[in-house]
Amino acid sequence: MHVLVTNDDGVAAPGLAALARALSELGRVTVMAPSKNWSASGHVKTMHKPLRVAEVVLADGTPALATSGAPSDCVALALLGVVTEPVDLVVSGINPNCNLGYDVTYSGTVTAAMEATIFGVPAVAVSTDHRAEIGFDAPARVAARVVERALAAGWPRGVLLNVNVPALPEAAIRGVRVTRQGLRPYRDALDARLDPRGVPYYWIGGDPPTGVHEPGTDFAALEDGCVSVTPLHLDLTAYAAHDGLEAALGGMPWPS
Amino acid sequence: MHVLVTNDDGVAAPGLAALARALSELGRVTVMAPSKNWSASGHVKTMHKPLRVAEVVLADGTPALATSGAPSDCVALALLGVVTEPVDLVVSGINPNCNLGYDVTYSGTVTAAMEATIFGVPAVAVSTDHRAEIGFDAPARVAARVVERALAAGWPRGVLLNVNVPALPEAAIRGVRVTRQGLRPYRDALDARLDPRGVPYYWIGGDPPTGVHEPGTDFAALEDGCVSVTPLHLDLTAYAAHDGLEAALGGMPWPS
Repeated sequence: MHVLVTNDDGVAAPGLAALARALSELGRVTVMAPSKNWSASGHVKTMHKPLRVAEVVLADGTPALATSGAPSDCVALALLGVVTEPVDLVVSGINPNCNLGYDVTYSGTVTAAMEATIFGVPAVAVSTDHRAEIGFDAPARVAARVVERALAAGWPRGVLLNVNVPALPEAAIRGVRVTRQGLRPYRDALDARLDPRGVPYYWIGGDPPTGVHEPGTDFAALEDGCVSVTPLHLDLTAYAAHDGLEAALGGMPWPS
Repeated sequence: MHVLVTNDDGVAAPGLAALARALSELGRVTVMAPSKNWSASGHVKTMHKPLRVAEVVLADGTPALATSGAPSDCVALALLGVVTEPVDLVVSGINPNCNLGYDVTYSGTVTAAMEATIFGVPAVAVSTDHRAEIGFDAPARVAARVVERALAAGWPRGVLLNVNVPALPEAAIRGVRVTRQGLRPYRDALDARLDPRGVPYYWIGGDPPTGVHEPGTDFAALEDGCVSVTPLHLDLTAYAAHDGLEAALGGMPWPS
């Protein structure tokens, strides 16, 4: 098996190297990641400028490719042929903050996995709330085992797995739960300031987001010390809203 | 009613002004849009640098606010208080290319509406495959009528509307259809070149994407000359994959 490993924090991030090491137990690993940090960058397709790819070596000696593109660009470049060997699995991470609830719509870690899904390749996003005393090696090993087992069971078509690993010693993790995307109330606040010339500028600030810990959600699994595995797909249709809208719009006099 | 109008093509785009004019029939309009083009930028939250807001005037004389942020940043800035009057509706566009199928995961036009949805504000993304002989005024008027009717019927909670208007004269449009997100096979191809110094660089190129015209989809509505209204939500959970994964992972021996 050939695994492509990428991330959104950039090629120098320690979570990337830890993930590459853990996944090398499953097969051959190619690392291709952005040269810079793309956190909260969303799903990007770089079409209006050319992209560069450079050979680099990670701090642990792992050879890697660094690109000038976003995480999703890395996946596209690799799957379109910059990486010549066919890729069987794409794993993105480890993001040093969990990607829960609405985070998945912003997360570069998740959108790298989305891009692979569009290409029809099984894909996983891996995140943890990083703590120095836990590090990335333990969450990386846990993620690799989850991925290995999901692959063995047959990958669900059109689905990517959003894996969040609790920041606990391996022995303290209480198991794996398949979850749904929970609700993430953001607590963003506007922080308006004046620059030295008296001109206003704005920070999007505020407190860290919380989660609504409903049973079955990603938040609840982590709170209970479990690994959260949320299957995600790219069909955003709100089917439940169809009939109400059809009643309102389908009968709209036309031409109006 | 107070409507916030934004886009991802930047404050100078003609589709923005046309949309602002059409929506002024529904209520008071504030325009706040990025100062530059953010196409295919995805869902962005700018947290690591401050944002600027400048007062500008559009080509048709409409006053507007231009920001240094992404489309979703514009919405966040406005709803967090840079725009002091409460916003009842956010409309993003008009994008000069339709946003269909997987496009919605990349589209800055759609992610502006997603951001409003996270804030709990009704939101609409409007796109058309622009043709000079049709312009933006007719699609903008059509979109405004659809939005007015959806508002009158009661906005579905947590839902944004992805509206794609066919590039046809108003009288030739055959009606409005509530649709589901279709499948968009991209035909991206790698275009590898050498710069004047012999160093490789890459374009993500290829043919324009097609659509799979299954009944009920956004693609099918447009092909039939109808306005496509797709209700979207931000729960990406692939519920259909839950049980299979639970069987594979829920029973995983742990600690493993």
